[in-house]
Amino acid sequence: MIYTIGVDFGSNSVRLALVDYYSGDLILTESQEYQQGCKGVFASEFDDLVARQDATDYLNSLIMAFNALHDVARDKGISLLNIKSMSIDATGSTPIPITRQMVPLSSLEVFRENLNAKAWMWKDHSSEEEAKRITDVIREYASEYLKLCGGKYSSEWFWAKILHCRNVDLLVFDLAYTWVEFSDFVPAVLSGVADAQQIKRNACAAGHKGLFDAALGGFPSKKVIETIDPHLVRILDSLPDQVYNVSEVIGTLSEHWAKSLGLSTEVMITAGALDAHVGAIGSGVNQQSLVRVVGTSTCDIIIGGKEIGLIEGVSGIAQDSVIPGYVGIEGGQSAVGDLFKWFVEGVLGKQADYHAALCDKAAKLEVGESGLVALDWNNGNRNILLDAHLSGLILGQSLFTQDYEIYRALLEGSAFGALKIIDQIQNAGVPIKKIICTGGIPQKNSLLMQIYADVFDRPVYVPDMEENVAYGAAIIAAAAIKDNEGRSRSILQIQETYLGQSQMVYYPIKTNVESYKRLYGLYTQLHDAFGREGIPHDMFGVMKELIKLKNSVKKSRQ
Amino acid sequence: MIYTIGVDFGSNSVRLALVDYYSGDLILTESQEYQQGCKGVFASEFDDLVARQDATDYLNSLIMAFNALHDVARDKGISLLNIKSMSIDATGSTPIPITRQMVPLSSLEVFRENLNAKAWMWKDHSSEEEAKRITDVIREYASEYLKLCGGKYSSEWFWAKILHCRNVDLLVFDLAYTWVEFSDFVPAVLSGVADAQQIKRNACAAGHKGLFDAALGGFPSKKVIETIDPHLVRILDSLPDQVYNVSEVIGTLSEHWAKSLGLSTEVMITAGALDAHVGAIGSGVNQQSLVRVVGTSTCDIIIGGKEIGLIEGVSGIAQDSVIPGYVGIEGGQSAVGDLFKWFVEGVLGKQADYHAALCDKAAKLEVGESGLVALDWNNGNRNILLDAHLSGLILGQSLFTQDYEIYRALLEGSAFGALKIIDQIQNAGVPIKKIICTGGIPQKNSLLMQIYADVFDRPVYVPDMEENVAYGAAIIAAAAIKDNEGRSRSILQIQETYLGQSQMVYYPIKTNVESYKRLYGLYTQLHDAFGREGIPHDMFGVMKELIKLKNSVKKSRQ
Repeated sequence: MIYTIGVDFGSNSVRLALVDYYSGDLILTESQEYQQGCKGVFASEFDDLVARQDATDYLNSLIMAFNALHDVARDKGISLLNIKSMSIDATGSTPIPITRQMVPLSSLEVFRENLNAKAWMWKDHSSEEEAKRITDVIREYASEYLKLCGGKYSSEWFWAKILHCRNVDLLVFDLAYTWVEFSDFVPAVLSGVADAQQIKRNACAAGHKGLFDAALGGFPSKKVIETIDPHLVRILDSLPDQVYNVSEVIGTLSEHWAKSLGLSTEVMITAGALDAHVGAIGSGVNQQSLVRVVGTSTCDIIIGGKEIGLIEGVSGIAQDSVIPGYVGIEGGQSAVGDLFKWFVEGVLGKQADYHAALCDKAAKLEVGESGLVALDWNNGNRNILLDAHLSGLILGQSLFTQDYEIYRALLEGSAFGALKIIDQIQNAGVPIKKIICTGGIPQKNSLLMQIYADVFDRPVYVPDMEENVAYGAAIIAAAAIKDNEGRSRSILQIQETYLGQSQMVYYPIKTNVESYKRLYGLYTQLHDAFGREGIPHDMFGVMKELIKLKNSVKKSRQ
Repeated sequence: MIYTIGVDFGSNSVRLALVDYYSGDLILTESQEYQQGCKGVFASEFDDLVARQDATDYLNSLIMAFNALHDVARDKGISLLNIKSMSIDATGSTPIPITRQMVPLSSLEVFRENLNAKAWMWKDHSSEEEAKRITDVIREYASEYLKLCGGKYSSEWFWAKILHCRNVDLLVFDLAYTWVEFSDFVPAVLSGVADAQQIKRNACAAGHKGLFDAALGGFPSKKVIETIDPHLVRILDSLPDQVYNVSEVIGTLSEHWAKSLGLSTEVMITAGALDAHVGAIGSGVNQQSLVRVVGTSTCDIIIGGKEIGLIEGVSGIAQDSVIPGYVGIEGGQSAVGDLFKWFVEGVLGKQADYHAALCDKAAKLEVGESGLVALDWNNGNRNILLDAHLSGLILGQSLFTQDYEIYRALLEGSAFGALKIIDQIQNAGVPIKKIICTGGIPQKNSLLMQIYADVFDRPVYVPDMEENVAYGAAIIAAAAIKDNEGRSRSILQIQETYLGQSQMVYYPIKTNVESYKRLYGLYTQLHDAFGREGIPHDMFGVMKELIKLKNSVKKSRQ
């Protein structure tokens, strides 16, 4: 027996997928919620935009997950010593300030209570001003880098967060030798890297979040970084000239970690990657299939040929970032599952099982029947507009509007937001023929999937598999294994062998497609009015049109 | 002992106030919820805009209320035979189709299930098209009538509803000899009127809802009504040339009704009036004090001198309609208590006691802290815009937005909507120095009252009295009583004797006033963008400004 294991660090938990190397069968899965803060997340009571995590929480949770996996494996007579390779993915951009000796600053007593010394979680939006500064400088002095960030650097990303730290917490900034992406930190720690200068950084995070492009000579030049802020030059100097893609092995498990996890020291560890990209691999991404990883937020991933340049408002275009040899294209929405959860738990004060009750009722509504339309910007707009200073909007309420109608409007608003991204990528010359949805929510929410099919006017595939992301990592790990003649298989070849046909397909319903076109027009009106600067919009028709559509649906029911 | 009694027919119940004629003391109150439909209201499953009630429900509930009053009175040794006068108010415009013999069409077997044969409740908005038609004709052929309706005839009013009935239900229209306002129907029935041609219609409903103006020769001319729709001429012919104000006695209790209610046949019955106007009397309306009757919806009432002409968007200006001798000015919002109730009961699914819990938490918020702003148009906009085809809007949500923050945003949106009306009346030359709030909600919701004071930047008085409206009717009834020399006192004189000084006063808090000015600016931007035709608006700053305000509040808390 040979096993590979995928390790997926999500927003609130770490998940493991143990896979049979030859058959691709998913043998065991395990997951462990983070222990600190609120499900791993530290918020600031003074600033909604802040979201931090503790790097020690990641490692401790990993140990707990492996302990649990051993317990189950033992019962089934499976030995985890047969694991030959491991691949690790994580959320990002989630940079962690560390010492030269690889110690996260949050482990130092002096910083125990300091949120700035922790990992700056992907959804932390506190660095808006700095993102603007970076965009301005890049636009003026290094415009060739614009395509990496859709024309606008995001407050969610590496350099913006580091610069914000410099601006708000000099001590943390000064004591950090460098900042390392979550998806680089864990592989480096597990493979025993003891000097932060030796970290092998991954092409995915560096390309999508750190402005690394090998064809342009790597990270932006010292001059450009200095123009952004002279203090950042020290950080640039701590970064390498070369990055590693997921087909590359960066080391093997250190003795310490082999013991901690109960694995062999021979386990190969590949370069890390961002969770969404790995999920795309686990779900069958290719040149015509866009993968949406639908979780608390989403990532939209597709791959394209080398000719793909800047796609305005689509957050990342980076070489080798998904499947080595192709250009990875990444879009995404800042709040999807989080948006629905906010309404159900935060506003209605219900338990998670209330989603199903709302879906049951909402599914009986015709398109347009609620009279509502919503903007899905409760956590800003990460794509197309790339603006964190936006907020939610719900419009069209009467005195009879019910919770399930608002819930459906949020699902629809979220689908419209996704269509904006799909339109933008397709208009840039990447033909999107089908949508593959993974990430947990698609399996649970068939109403959302039908709305997707109707709004996108494309078939939506939902693979019948747990842990697509961890499974994608296991695929990557499998590609690292060589046979007796020293030959390995490519990720695309492994995908073809492993990924079965077991999936749900949702097809567009013609009448819904037509009605959604009308609603999408209204969504677009609101989207452009509140989201784009300097263009006055006539909003008078919006409420009228919604009422007209609602009344026509009600009449057709009579 | 001499008693007067006020009878107040509200949206969901009838209320009685028994008052000592000499002292003005409120001796007993009683109330009875309507029995049919949902708390008296019949909605249509096909059209949210429809709201109907059954005229028999009104009369049956009245009998039940008097039965209950007798029970309590008996225990206290009070004889209701000492009641000398009665005044009746009701919601409106709530026209009821009746036969020549005073039978409501809904009592006829053939119409038992027909909503169109019932009373068309004030908040019924199904007659929008017809209201537009009436406005157009009045504007072109009888513009001198425009001031009665703020420049735009409303879908809530008499003629629009009758014309809509003609357009959707010919049988009901044809079988109705005439249509009578709820506030005329009950006094007529109780005083034994047996011929619909003999109904003494009240100046308040006729002036504010029916386009009656004595100075202009009464109702609009046959020619004008014919231009609106020739079929309406028959209804015009059933209406009188003269109307009665509340200082006039229209009859005494019929033998039948004296027996049914257990009262003397000598009880004088005054001309009826709309509930809000009577509430204003019961609360101390005068030329500088605007009374807001805050219930499911609101009415804003003030009186002015004869020079008051059209006030654009303020729904009614009518001679003698509140206090005989003055011009009554009426504005109002279509959903106030209904709006808060919608959120608490309709969306959150909580009981009515949850309002208090939400208020407790919401009161701890600083102005602007939630980052939210809301339009209060879930039931359309009855004033300023006079447009039923508008809807609610909530903007500024993050993933941390809580139910009590939304609740407060709805209270604030409602206050902003009220300020639009106050501004409009004051700009027309009526100086508004203080605001008196009654109607049930003001006594229960001190947070709303403080928000009013801060948003209006004026002191807000909340009289400490139950049943202000029924009490106002009792004041009117008292003015009908003559002493041995045949002298009676005017309503203003009675007001002065009866109305004590027991009231809560809310004063504006300076810092809140300033912050609310900023929020009101944003409300106005949304108000004008979604509510006014043909003017493009730049909305880009709205979300930014809210986030800025929210962050500045959070920072000042640090």
